[in-house]
Amino acid sequence: MPPLRPPFLLLKASRHVQLTSRYSRRYAPAIVRSCSCSTPHKSQKSVNFSSKASVQNAQLNSTSSDPPTPTADHRTLSQTHELFITSPYSPGSPLLLPNGAYVFQKLQAFLRAQYPQFGFQEVITPTIYKKSLWEKSGHWDNYAEDMFSVQGRGATGQTENAEVGQNEEFGLKPMNCPGHCLLFRDEIKSYRDLPIRYADFSALHRNEVSGALTGLTRVRRFHQDDAHIFCRPDQILSEIENTLRFVGMVYDTFGLGPYKLLLSTRPTDQFIGTIEEWDRAEQQLTSALNNSGREWAINEGDGAFYGPKIDIILKDANGKEHQTATIQLDFQLPQRFDLYYQASPEELEAPTKTRDEGVLDPSNRRPVIVHRAIYGSLERFMALLIEHYAGKYPFWLSPRPAIILSLNQDPELLKHVAYLQSVLSGLQNTEASSPSSTAQQSEPSKPRPQPLSTIHLPIDVDTSARSLGKKIADAQKKKYNHIIVIGPSEVQSGGVRVELANQPNEEATQRVLSEVLGRELQSNDIKRGKVAVNMGVSEARLYFEKLVYSFF
Amino acid sequence: MPPLRPPFLLLKASRHVQLTSRYSRRYAPAIVRSCSCSTPHKSQKSVNFSSKASVQNAQLNSTSSDPPTPTADHRTLSQTHELFITSPYSPGSPLLLPNGAYVFQKLQAFLRAQYPQFGFQEVITPTIYKKSLWEKSGHWDNYAEDMFSVQGRGATGQTENAEVGQNEEFGLKPMNCPGHCLLFRDEIKSYRDLPIRYADFSALHRNEVSGALTGLTRVRRFHQDDAHIFCRPDQILSEIENTLRFVGMVYDTFGLGPYKLLLSTRPTDQFIGTIEEWDRAEQQLTSALNNSGREWAINEGDGAFYGPKIDIILKDANGKEHQTATIQLDFQLPQRFDLYYQASPEELEAPTKTRDEGVLDPSNRRPVIVHRAIYGSLERFMALLIEHYAGKYPFWLSPRPAIILSLNQDPELLKHVAYLQSVLSGLQNTEASSPSSTAQQSEPSKPRPQPLSTIHLPIDVDTSARSLGKKIADAQKKKYNHIIVIGPSEVQSGGVRVELANQPNEEATQRVLSEVLGRELQSNDIKRGKVAVNMGVSEARLYFEKLVYSFF
Repeated sequence: MPPLRPPFLLLKASRHVQLTSRYSRRYAPAIVRSCSCSTPHKSQKSVNFSSKASVQNAQLNSTSSDPPTPTADHRTLSQTHELFITSPYSPGSPLLLPNGAYVFQKLQAFLRAQYPQFGFQEVITPTIYKKSLWEKSGHWDNYAEDMFSVQGRGATGQTENAEVGQNEEFGLKPMNCPGHCLLFRDEIKSYRDLPIRYADFSALHRNEVSGALTGLTRVRRFHQDDAHIFCRPDQILSEIENTLRFVGMVYDTFGLGPYKLLLSTRPTDQFIGTIEEWDRAEQQLTSALNNSGREWAINEGDGAFYGPKIDIILKDANGKEHQTATIQLDFQLPQRFDLYYQASPEELEAPTKTRDEGVLDPSNRRPVIVHRAIYGSLERFMALLIEHYAGKYPFWLSPRPAIILSLNQDPELLKHVAYLQSVLSGLQNTEASSPSSTAQQSEPSKPRPQPLSTIHLPIDVDTSARSLGKKIADAQKKKYNHIIVIGPSEVQSGGVRVELANQPNEEATQRVLSEVLGRELQSNDIKRGKVAVNMGVSEARLYFEKLVYSFF
Repeated sequence: MPPLRPPFLLLKASRHVQLTSRYSRRYAPAIVRSCSCSTPHKSQKSVNFSSKASVQNAQLNSTSSDPPTPTADHRTLSQTHELFITSPYSPGSPLLLPNGAYVFQKLQAFLRAQYPQFGFQEVITPTIYKKSLWEKSGHWDNYAEDMFSVQGRGATGQTENAEVGQNEEFGLKPMNCPGHCLLFRDEIKSYRDLPIRYADFSALHRNEVSGALTGLTRVRRFHQDDAHIFCRPDQILSEIENTLRFVGMVYDTFGLGPYKLLLSTRPTDQFIGTIEEWDRAEQQLTSALNNSGREWAINEGDGAFYGPKIDIILKDANGKEHQTATIQLDFQLPQRFDLYYQASPEELEAPTKTRDEGVLDPSNRRPVIVHRAIYGSLERFMALLIEHYAGKYPFWLSPRPAIILSLNQDPELLKHVAYLQSVLSGLQNTEASSPSSTAQQSEPSKPRPQPLSTIHLPIDVDTSARSLGKKIADAQKKKYNHIIVIGPSEVQSGGVRVELANQPNEEATQRVLSEVLGRELQSNDIKRGKVAVNMGVSEARLYFEKLVYSFF
């Protein structure tokens, strides 16, 4: 367990810097950490590359000169799909309705599925920490206005085995970094153990003023796809390269882009560490940017005092720019939390002086922390996607991928509809059952657990007594990706007629459909401008599964 | 948005009860709600059926007369698998290390995969709500000692568009029910829309005294597999039956049991609602219990004042009893939050009087809320499993399902090890690549997104220069389910030798292995008491996938 330590270490390191470098200064006490964790805070004002005031040294041109067209606001668009509500009881903390939670969880599940190939391990960390932790990390002083304070309402300090600082207040976490530092410190690490990459989807809280709160974009409570990479200085290049590849893969999957990369370098007047350390780090960032094959620019002197950073500036369909992902190097937190690893033989031989020589055992070195977020705030990323897709979600992400409409209320027909819903949503497969066994299936005396890898789809049904015309109009209004009408002929054939009602990237989707059907689509597959084909039930399920696999 | 309402409604209902029933009394003001949400609180003292003092009317006998044997504590057992740490900075909020987070997430993913077949929809709700919400729900008064209060540290009330109750303090949520009531109220519901089942894995906080905090069992911050079912009174039976089936399925999967069901009925002296309503509800609970085929008992008069409940009492391997799952009916919160639905024609014709006649529009009815949790607190359930499995986790849940050990440090051999790790963990398949392309694979210039349905396994490798004997001893100490040694002969054959080192339910596992091999296991497949067989790489991956599908 890390004991509480007085902040002398910080001052010592700072003094050391003053002595060794004429460019460095003592910390300006008012500086606020703006690591990846603070993305939603800093970037809620969108970065405009054409405005010299906001990004003075940016050498990028805007990739489009079209005037921005007005988009529907994500709050308005969310109503169609019933994604979230807000409440005066929880200003700044939206409540996600089932459809919104579905999209949110797909975003989370998507990144989780990618973590193994990028070497991230998820951890679960507390929501509240004692004030003393935030003092140690510097948040209590530098981030005061943005933090919530927490106190027990009852008497917590009246037992014999009282904890240290029993009645000390807590801070509601605005960032995950201090918790991840505690995890890193738990065991002594060797140079061979690095990099260690902790990912965390925890809820975070920052106290935005109430007048500024808006939907999912300006909130007090949000979740980040937050991660901290603890690495050796010589691993910075490969970590940044991998992170940039990760960013590219994610944005390609969502069809987002183009985006630009912006490198912020060492401030001229206040920073920690030696100039050599900064130069080496910036060199590695520059190499990574060059190797990325993306457009990038330098924003000279705009790095944080604790390290250089790369911001990702995404341009949306309307030409508006958003800062989303961010990759920030941090030389400071490893000092504050006295993080170290056992140096490699090469490191022991190298003549380079460490920043806090005398504090650190000669056989140890400080890791560098890379703060990184790819979505940034999941809530804000969701808002961006809502506006980007404007009601036309890709099938795999859509809370309304398909609806089955019954032509009439014939019991046989309704039984077939229930069977179809069960198969298409992934609850049963066609081999294991037939429509005639559906009644037992829906009330099984001993249900079987579904494998974790099953692709569940929220397939809806409308078996109301309304006319088919009204049901179709309603399904269109609700923007289902597919509409499936079941009449007596489908009951007889045992098949389905699937209409591609509202799917983005329709060409690619049609290719998947062709592949499943084993034939090219023909002109008579198109009715009133929409592709609609007859298929077997297992074919339809296969088609849905393939759309999910392909992220269409 | 629900407006703030004075608590007259509650008093009125209470008065109404007084007038109509000679058995009923006014609320005792000190009564604390103990819905499913409070499970970890109430049940941290284990229920002992043989003690008359704790459960007076229980008619069950203990199913075992063996004296309890001492178990290793979950905190000790957790060290072997490096599951979690605690910190003086966050007493009562353990930090889950990657392995612990892995197990936690498997538990969560398992329930999530079952939710569609049981009709639950997940929602995401705030962590902090204004005090006024907790006053409305009754928590602020009745749950005061257990709640944390939250306040902004900066000035939040200085803007023009200030929110209502700008400087009102917040409460850190100890339960999810009030948030789910807000979601239910968002849209007017018809009798056809019910039941609505909201599930929520939110972090919850309750202010336990510090002296009582222990590992994962007595904590201040925990997660529940919490859900609230909003249903019509006539739907209680089927909802309870389904929930009991759900409980049975879950506990069977984890190999837990036996367990007993305990019905707590109407208190004699204080309750809300009419006796008729209680009788009807208890009748439905009794039918559900009878139909469950499980041992059950009545604990007469021990229901909460707001509704009857069923507790699940699980007996662990050492004869110790734990209250885990709970199913509680609630007639009160629907009144407090003025929840209603448009009544069905049958309901409109029925002569039954509603509890709050005069308050509710005659065409509307109050839903009943069923609070239910199957694990209860995930942290506590995890502790229970840790002690239950005692270091021998089923493969699908194990944070250490397999390790590959290299016999030497030959570059060809190490390449083969990297390839095997990649295939066995699910990052690449054997068809798409061969060992010779592994180098490119690990540094792909354009990585492809992994489908969400991929079964990822955290397969470790040990390619250190240590002797094989030392590596094997280390792998055994760390209790990997499988140990795979790769020497020159495996590189030549392209296969693997898989040893079943530490797998529970070994007989069933061997059946899966036979199935994949297409032959019975023979005596020469067993070395030093352990099954160890040679397999192709794809066979080994298939065997792993089948273990996961079967929850072995």
